[in-house]
Amino acid sequence: MTEPETSPEPVRPLSPRREALWRIIFLSDTPAGRGFDVALLIAIAASVLVVMLETVPDIARNHGDLLRGAEWFFTLLFTLELGARLWVCRRPLRYLGSFFGIVDLIAIVPTYLQLLVVGTQYLAVVRILRLLRMFRVFKMAHHIGEAGLLLNALRASKRKIFVFLLAVMTLVCIEGTLIYVVESRANPQFSSIPQSIYWAIVTITTVGYGDMAPVTVLGKVVASIIMLTGFAIIAVPTGVVTAELGRAMRVDNRRCGECGWKGHDPRASHCLQCGEAL
Amino acid sequence: MTEPETSPEPVRPLSPRREALWRIIFLSDTPAGRGFDVALLIAIAASVLVVMLETVPDIARNHGDLLRGAEWFFTLLFTLELGARLWVCRRPLRYLGSFFGIVDLIAIVPTYLQLLVVGTQYLAVVRILRLLRMFRVFKMAHHIGEAGLLLNALRASKRKIFVFLLAVMTLVCIEGTLIYVVESRANPQFSSIPQSIYWAIVTITTVGYGDMAPVTVLGKVVASIIMLTGFAIIAVPTGVVTAELGRAMRVDNRRCGECGWKGHDPRASHCLQCGEAL
Amino acid sequence: MTEPETSPEPVRPLSPRREALWRIIFLSDTPAGRGFDVALLIAIAASVLVVMLETVPDIARNHGDLLRGAEWFFTLLFTLELGARLWVCRRPLRYLGSFFGIVDLIAIVPTYLQLLVVGTQYLAVVRILRLLRMFRVFKMAHHIGEAGLLLNALRASKRKIFVFLLAVMTLVCIEGTLIYVVESRANPQFSSIPQSIYWAIVTITTVGYGDMAPVTVLGKVVASIIMLTGFAIIAVPTGVVTAELGRAMRVDNRRCGECGWKGHDPRASHCLQCGEAL
Amino acid sequence: MTEPETSPEPVRPLSPRREALWRIIFLSDTPAGRGFDVALLIAIAASVLVVMLETVPDIARNHGDLLRGAEWFFTLLFTLELGARLWVCRRPLRYLGSFFGIVDLIAIVPTYLQLLVVGTQYLAVVRILRLLRMFRVFKMAHHIGEAGLLLNALRASKRKIFVFLLAVMTLVCIEGTLIYVVESRANPQFSSIPQSIYWAIVTITTVGYGDMAPVTVLGKVVASIIMLTGFAIIAVPTGVVTAELGRAMRVDNRRCGECGWKGHDPRASHCLQCGEAL
Repeated sequence: MTEPETSPEPVRPLSPRREALWRIIFLSDTPAGRGFDVALLIAIAASVLVVMLETVPDIARNHGDLLRGAEWFFTLLFTLELGARLWVCRRPLRYLGSFFGIVDLIAIVPTYLQLLVVGTQYLAVVRILRLLRMFRVFKMAHHIGEAGLLLNALRASKRKIFVFLLAVMTLVCIEGTLIYVVESRANPQFSSIPQSIYWAIVTITTVGYGDMAPVTVLGKVVASIIMLTGFAIIAVPTGVVTAELGRAMRVDNRRCGECGWKGHDPRASHCLQCGEAL
Repeated sequence: MTEPETSPEPVRPLSPRREALWRIIFLSDTPAGRGFDVALLIAIAASVLVVMLETVPDIARNHGDLLRGAEWFFTLLFTLELGARLWVCRRPLRYLGSFFGIVDLIAIVPTYLQLLVVGTQYLAVVRILRLLRMFRVFKMAHHIGEAGLLLNALRASKRKIFVFLLAVMTLVCIEGTLIYVVESRANPQFSSIPQSIYWAIVTITTVGYGDMAPVTVLGKVVASIIMLTGFAIIAVPTGVVTAELGRAMRVDNRRCGECGWKGHDPRASHCLQCGEAL
Repeated sequence: MTEPETSPEPVRPLSPRREALWRIIFLSDTPAGRGFDVALLIAIAASVLVVMLETVPDIARNHGDLLRGAEWFFTLLFTLELGARLWVCRRPLRYLGSFFGIVDLIAIVPTYLQLLVVGTQYLAVVRILRLLRMFRVFKMAHHIGEAGLLLNALRASKRKIFVFLLAVMTLVCIEGTLIYVVESRANPQFSSIPQSIYWAIVTITTVGYGDMAPVTVLGKVVASIIMLTGFAIIAVPTGVVTAELGRAMRVDNRRCGECGWKGHDPRASHCLQCGEAL
Repeated sequence: MTEPETSPEPVRPLSPRREALWRIIFLSDTPAGRGFDVALLIAIAASVLVVMLETVPDIARNHGDLLRGAEWFFTLLFTLELGARLWVCRRPLRYLGSFFGIVDLIAIVPTYLQLLVVGTQYLAVVRILRLLRMFRVFKMAHHIGEAGLLLNALRASKRKIFVFLLAVMTLVCIEGTLIYVVESRANPQFSSIPQSIYWAIVTITTVGYGDMAPVTVLGKVVASIIMLTGFAIIAVPTGVVTAELGRAMRVDNRRCGECGWKGHDPRASHCLQCGEAL
């Protein structure tokens, strides 16, 4: 989402050829550039799909070689693309440091890495992040705006959320110990405190897999209390985000020159109090 | 809910008989019309019930023929009704294109379709949508208003929700891969990445069936992190809808006499567009 | 909670004895009255506990007679009490029609009913509603106020919630049918459409017992979509209640006589715009 | 979080040595003091970890003695520390009465207690609360502010939440009885009313372990109704907290010079209490 800030600064052309290539690769305001971007998006989606399908036993058994081949093909393609990007853009290092530069890099590394460490190729799924490019390609400016609004709200609440998560972590540690003390004797599922803390997290987030559940009467009483408190707790992050979003959507700092009224509707061109033009 | 916009325009009568029939079928301001609508609602509810009961083994075994008979009876009834509607209304095609016209059509198609494709008749359940007519029949204008308010809020948040769902989808893909890498060796349930993504969705939405659950220590740690993040994430859509609803409910309906701007702050005494006193 | 409205109107004493008794039973402003009410609350709590414990096999086996005895004792006690209430209050029928009158009645009926119908005595649990009296006994006026605020917010959102539940009901019917068509062949759990609708409700409310879960690939895809939509849907009731509560807590209709500003803080005694006293 | 209020009052030094020690132990504005606090935090985290690992069978089997040793080492360390705190601070009893004093005490008691009562040592996990000190050590003033905001919102909603929990408790008792009456005959899981109430809590909080689930048709109908109502109910605490947070964030900190009233509307230009210009 942070693409706008990290978009390459207006560049002074080096050679016409690289200039043209740069326009194709980095912008999508020309038919060629747009075509390139769309093709890229398709390739990305396809490559992610390949990585995923590779892990499905039946498919792997029948088309394993094909998938591995496609996987390598896409990786080499993306390697070439990244090379081209670095070659044509004026500050390669700065691009590599940008959000999309990093994503481009970690999108190809895993496939090479598997030659050294087995099982790492799946991490290539992160290249799904490259799809975020589509926001620019499809001129989803509005959506970028909305995303920005959401991100701002989340950023504004990040401290509150952090404090909240800290409190929840402390809480689950204590609750997990409590249930362990109460339940462990009768119930092998609660074999240790860490295990019980895991249960407390599953419970307080209302996920409730049911792979662990109290069996003793006292355990169920404790669990009930934990659930009901969790019920009130789950309200906090929602409240935080909502309040921040509401503020983000409401905020407008213009003050009326006439009557000094503040807090106008962002759409207002005149003071709602005295009718003076803002 | 969109019934109001798509309600048939005031028609100039063709023949008195069709005029009378039209009034009975499309309006419910006469005893006959009201009776027709109520009977129709009952028939719809009954037919939906029939389709559902048809799938209950015991009932199907004992009253299968009866149910199939009823099913066909209702279908023919609704076919006749649709025919009548098209015959009496002045712009049949326009009606067919309207929300209720489409619903009327897809409410009868499945039963006929099953003659060609087996198992499609159940789709006849969609005729439950026809019950939305009751809003008009029972003059639930207020409820239509409320529904409109909700729909507006949802419509206003649709972009944010879309961006949010996109982010969630990306997130679950990465989280699913992560848990797959961590868990798959020890746990046959996480047999593939798509499978693991399904688990991630079940977890982040806090549904938590428990048909899949991590068993390794590392897996449980990752799961805990996913749950706690999901805990913060679940706040976003609520925040969005709440903020939009709050705004929708804060705005009032006064229209500026000068510039016709609508949606002023309830406290406003002057138009925020042109400054004219309200 | 609606106790305040339904509290007995100021009565003109009939006989001093009944007057005194009335004061003890209906008010709690005298030591006797207060003692009576507290004792009553304890008796109610105890009787509810008895009814519940009666159903616990072990306890029932060992102390069955004792519990049944206590149960009858409490029932007779409450019968006497209700009789006394009707005898001392000036408009017995009106009291019987009030919220607490009805509760008093249905609190004793089940025990007698079990002589005719077996297994109805458990319904005596409803007498727990009588505990609401404590709000008055313990002068929890503030809490009544808060409760009123919550009730008002819920009442204000009742239409929206109704429309919402209607929409959800329609949705689960269609989703249930969908999953049935997709899943039923491979998965005996989805044996019928009503069954599948039950699953859809369990899923969309994020309860997710796991007693039913899709096993086919397509089924899991459909389930994922249902969960993600449910994720957005769960936001609606919260949004509604929050918006209503926020309004209920914000609202104040005083308009400044000087500058005509409206929407002051309920605590304000002076206009926040021009400083004029309100 | 309440640390600020309970921080030791500015003390007049007794002896230079104790004064110096006091500065090291209670403040973290000197290298020594900061070092002490950081070391303490690490020790606390380590000791909590030890207590938890002690309960993991495999680890306990292999390193049991080591862990028990560490456990005792940390406990003695914390005992010494508490002793030092009491020795250097001017009002030992007042410190013991403060939030952190109490936590310091209950952080060491369990380990000693296990000499008398077996299995109590796990309660030593509560010493995790001592980590709250880090807020002061790391000068996380902002976070304390945010935490305060959250706490205020929770405190402001505490009455509403209490009333709400009371209502929920009443509700689950009645719903639990209902499901018991409906389900118990066919389903051994619903063996008693308390058991069924536990299920109702698991359901209404949308945790849904699945260790208990209705099997009869009627039971599933009742469960569906409970879930859908719970769906609306879950909205209330969120609504309360959100509304309170929104208000808490809307209020600003200007204090009226005239009457000292605080908590004005951000748009206010005059005190809402005495009308003085702000």
